[in-house]
Amino acid sequence: MISPDIVRDALKKKKVRSEEAFGLEYLRFNDDYKDIPRGTVIFKDFVIWGYPHIGRIFMLETGLKEQFEAPFWVEEKVDGYNTRIFKYGENYYALSRGGFICPFTTDRLEDLIDLRILDENPDLVICAEVAGPENPYIEESPPYIEEDVRIFVFDFMRKNELGFLSHGKKMELIEKYNLPHVKVIGRFTSSDEDIKKIKEVLKKYNEEGREGVVFKEDSERNKRVKYITSYANLMDIKVNAKNMLQLPPEYYTNRTLRLVLFMMEEGLERTQHLYEELGKAFIDGLFQAIEQFQKEHKVYRTFSCKLRKKENAIALLELLSKTSKHIQVKEKKLEKEGDYWRLEFDKIYLNMTGLLGHLLSGGIVYD
Amino acid sequence: MISPDIVRDALKKKKVRSEEAFGLEYLRFNDDYKDIPRGTVIFKDFVIWGYPHIGRIFMLETGLKEQFEAPFWVEEKVDGYNTRIFKYGENYYALSRGGFICPFTTDRLEDLIDLRILDENPDLVICAEVAGPENPYIEESPPYIEEDVRIFVFDFMRKNELGFLSHGKKMELIEKYNLPHVKVIGRFTSSDEDIKKIKEVLKKYNEEGREGVVFKEDSERNKRVKYITSYANLMDIKVNAKNMLQLPPEYYTNRTLRLVLFMMEEGLERTQHLYEELGKAFIDGLFQAIEQFQKEHKVYRTFSCKLRKKENAIALLELLSKTSKHIQVKEKKLEKEGDYWRLEFDKIYLNMTGLLGHLLSGGIVYD
Repeated sequence: MISPDIVRDALKKKKVRSEEAFGLEYLRFNDDYKDIPRGTVIFKDFVIWGYPHIGRIFMLETGLKEQFEAPFWVEEKVDGYNTRIFKYGENYYALSRGGFICPFTTDRLEDLIDLRILDENPDLVICAEVAGPENPYIEESPPYIEEDVRIFVFDFMRKNELGFLSHGKKMELIEKYNLPHVKVIGRFTSSDEDIKKIKEVLKKYNEEGREGVVFKEDSERNKRVKYITSYANLMDIKVNAKNMLQLPPEYYTNRTLRLVLFMMEEGLERTQHLYEELGKAFIDGLFQAIEQFQKEHKVYRTFSCKLRKKENAIALLELLSKTSKHIQVKEKKLEKEGDYWRLEFDKIYLNMTGLLGHLLSGGIVYD
Repeated sequence: MISPDIVRDALKKKKVRSEEAFGLEYLRFNDDYKDIPRGTVIFKDFVIWGYPHIGRIFMLETGLKEQFEAPFWVEEKVDGYNTRIFKYGENYYALSRGGFICPFTTDRLEDLIDLRILDENPDLVICAEVAGPENPYIEESPPYIEEDVRIFVFDFMRKNELGFLSHGKKMELIEKYNLPHVKVIGRFTSSDEDIKKIKEVLKKYNEEGREGVVFKEDSERNKRVKYITSYANLMDIKVNAKNMLQLPPEYYTNRTLRLVLFMMEEGLERTQHLYEELGKAFIDGLFQAIEQFQKEHKVYRTFSCKLRKKENAIALLELLSKTSKHIQVKEKKLEKEGDYWRLEFDKIYLNMTGLLGHLLSGGIVYD
């Protein structure tokens, strides 16, 4: 448990905020504080720990040899957003990475996953990725999800407890309750032979447009690291270039470096095609932003998703407005569509809109 | 003149430092302070003002219409480093942009420019760009300078006085003393017809690999702005990608945005070729850094230049060591070559060397 002293200190330092949603009151760590990860929430009856940061290796071969001292499981990393699902009283809830009760995920749980597991194991917390083109948070989506969203379980925690269930226990639960889950590629070591196999997988994942993998040591310490494909790095640049000012510029330079290291390690050639892809990723996104600004005097992106309850759609918009910095969230449409409510909204990128307004009207920049 | 109170305050705030070079003692503004630009220096007998920042427009048409209220001169912007040349007692000196007496430029003055003008007008300060492949400061160099360095005068100031001589007075002095100078393209207005002509010039400059132009209003206020070609933006990325961590990441995102705006305004197509050029600029520089690191365990670039006096070469290395952050300067060769001393040295990029060392040996990054 988290001692009251730490909570008091964290409150003083504004690392913890008080929240209310779905009739529940709770405290949320909005930043890492001492050993407590961002997104940890304290309810009246229990604590749900934040999902910890996973470090990234840039090189497979040396990285795996350096980081692991026991065999490890390799799982697909799905390009979506992280959620933690739990039961409280008679209801199921889904937390965002940052520790908000997510109105969208919570609303759609019954469509995405069979939650009998939580009825029979009410102390469990399901850790999963939600991904797909119709999600309200991120522009990217795995190519194999054609509509709406899907969920992929990748870990279990317990209420009040730090750390994850073992791989064996996890797979047992996934099979028993037939839960949708991330693809488990296998158990490997950092032997040269295994690394060769892992490289093959990554090469294939890159061609298929998958994001990457997470390595999880099959040991008490359960150490984790992640590794991302060149494809995913390119997509990150492409998707975000339209709103270039939103993310720290390191976002782009980091990804360019990762891209080059991926190519080197996988023995991929510096082809015209790859040069083109990277140039295109930067240029097309910016062109789109400029063209949109010239036509509509703002730079924005439209999101669309469906929910079961209208009140959850409204709560989602409120949450997005509250948590988006330099972004204006504007409802476009909220209409009944069969059993659902179809929500469409724009995220207007205020920084990019402001900069292009200044530059295109002939403004000066000192740099 | 600068009041003693301001100097005292600036000293307290460490905006001014005391320097000694070539037997001269002086105070140097190492940062902008109130109205005093960085690089302003105070000698015993006079002040030389820093060369002011020039703002950048990203769009020609709206930019010129917005910024100028009178006709303006258009001059080539040469891709080199800025210097201010003056006479003190019987000697000539050259200041760097930051206000150091530059051992390299000072040493080579007699090769670069006829300074009788300063004998007859000892209160003048010549503002000029020094450019060429054999300079100790910057990697880039205009394609039309094949060896060593050349100098290009673009302004005159007077000792103790802020501001520049008028264009007319400047050209009179340049012609009278036959001084090497930047190309003056002509006097224009922001009429549609003139903007069309200026765009043609920039398109040609872009093809020729020139950096860009500076606009100087032909009026009392003598307002200036600059505008850079797409070529120069690409070269900046290409040259610096090798040492990506040295510059702030905005350096790259800014240039990518400028590149796209240049293309849009000049009506250049988003061709495969351009995509390729941008991708190549990022990727090749990084590849070079990685390959160099793998072979030599460090990322560096070798500079070569020649000087008349050995003591100036040594002073140059000392100055570079003192002023380079995160860069180790290492002498490689200092040998007599005809009437000159040939100096070769490496700039070892410590940040990039450290990062690649960490990543290639399998280190983790949390981002």
